[in-house]
Amino acid sequence: MASAKQQSGVRKQLVSNEILERAAALFAERGFAATNLQDVADALDMSRTALYHYIGGKDELLATLVHGLTDDTAESLERLAADQSLDPLTKMTKALHGMVLARANNPARIRLLLGSEGSLKEPLATEFREARRRSLDGMSRIVEEGVRAGAFRPVESHVAAFALFGMCNWVAWWYRPDRDGRQTPEMIADALVEIGMKGLCADSHRAASDGNSVQSALARLREDLAFLERATGVLQPSTGE
Amino acid sequence: MASAKQQSGVRKQLVSNEILERAAALFAERGFAATNLQDVADALDMSRTALYHYIGGKDELLATLVHGLTDDTAESLERLAADQSLDPLTKMTKALHGMVLARANNPARIRLLLGSEGSLKEPLATEFREARRRSLDGMSRIVEEGVRAGAFRPVESHVAAFALFGMCNWVAWWYRPDRDGRQTPEMIADALVEIGMKGLCADSHRAASDGNSVQSALARLREDLAFLERATGVLQPSTGE
Repeated sequence: MASAKQQSGVRKQLVSNEILERAAALFAERGFAATNLQDVADALDMSRTALYHYIGGKDELLATLVHGLTDDTAESLERLAADQSLDPLTKMTKALHGMVLARANNPARIRLLLGSEGSLKEPLATEFREARRRSLDGMSRIVEEGVRAGAFRPVESHVAAFALFGMCNWVAWWYRPDRDGRQTPEMIADALVEIGMKGLCADSHRAASDGNSVQSALARLREDLAFLERATGVLQPSTGE
Repeated sequence: MASAKQQSGVRKQLVSNEILERAAALFAERGFAATNLQDVADALDMSRTALYHYIGGKDELLATLVHGLTDDTAESLERLAADQSLDPLTKMTKALHGMVLARANNPARIRLLLGSEGSLKEPLATEFREARRRSLDGMSRIVEEGVRAGAFRPVESHVAAFALFGMCNWVAWWYRPDRDGRQTPEMIADALVEIGMKGLCADSHRAASDGNSVQSALARLREDLAFLERATGVLQPSTGE
């Protein structure tokens, strides 16, 4: 059983997360300068004093918002890019899946960050740019590894990385768990992973989840050929098989 | 030769376009409320009086910014969706190409719109939402037509439409014509169209530009099969051909 201390830690983290998401929504809606901590406390139906139990102040709140998701994304992509135990298709599948889930679960934070990039003060502005540069670098390395392995088409790695970031980041602008209840974040992640992977993959790698051996590619081709021949009535001479 | 009146009309449009893009950049950076027309005039190195030759006021400027690109996108997607002379692959290729070009050429406008959606006043807020709904509807119809025709995989049309919007809209956040001089908007559009189309297409439609007949699909499959058999040394019994 979890100790009282552990439970309190979990509770504090859940509350902190809720504070961050609500604060991000308010900042994005009204602007950072026009929002004070009393507004954040009101939106959370808690007192300003109680709010100070979780956060140090408005500037610290913004710093936490800027660092949280961007650092997480950068670290996760760098770790995947460097992982020698995974093939590039698995790396990319994990990268896209993780990014979509984070954006579906924290949409206000992503919208705030990308809407207010131009108005961030130093040193936050530099730190934010640096985290985004690390993310781009990690994602580009995964693309390049896939191209070298013949799994991905010979795409320009930065353009492909930005195409995938766009697809994933956009989730924060359209997906609402409460409104789109039929589709869970997991379902959205699976659908976007499939579109992204097919968009990158060389033709012989039709899906990330398929086997990648030459043998399985051959088997798929034979199946398709047989299907098309039946469907069209175009018959091959007997092969004696 | 163009008449003086035509030249004046062209010049006025070019200047208007430059005013809109600069104003959008300022609004996005400082916020709409904190930016006045003198700031816009200063950024353009023109007088406030000269600026009034082109625009009616700050609110009209914002209305023009909100309507311009969103209405253009909505109308273009609705027109493509309804065009009975084009097949769905051509429709989607044109839709993606046009969206990427518009975003590469007017990045500040797109960033402003999508960063400030929550702070738009009525009736602009409703008009903006309505234009986005029409865009989603047009794009979803093109996806659905492609799925029915067997050209696209059986994707959920709204999710696929948002994936493509994200890929195209994101261009406004990363592409800078001055910084990325090696890659023209046309090159970016071509690269993203290819990723998007491959992401949607059923396996037998490997590329939008390929023929779509069953015969050409068969021909491609036979080629691949022959290539793989040679590459792997897996030989089929002689077919007598």
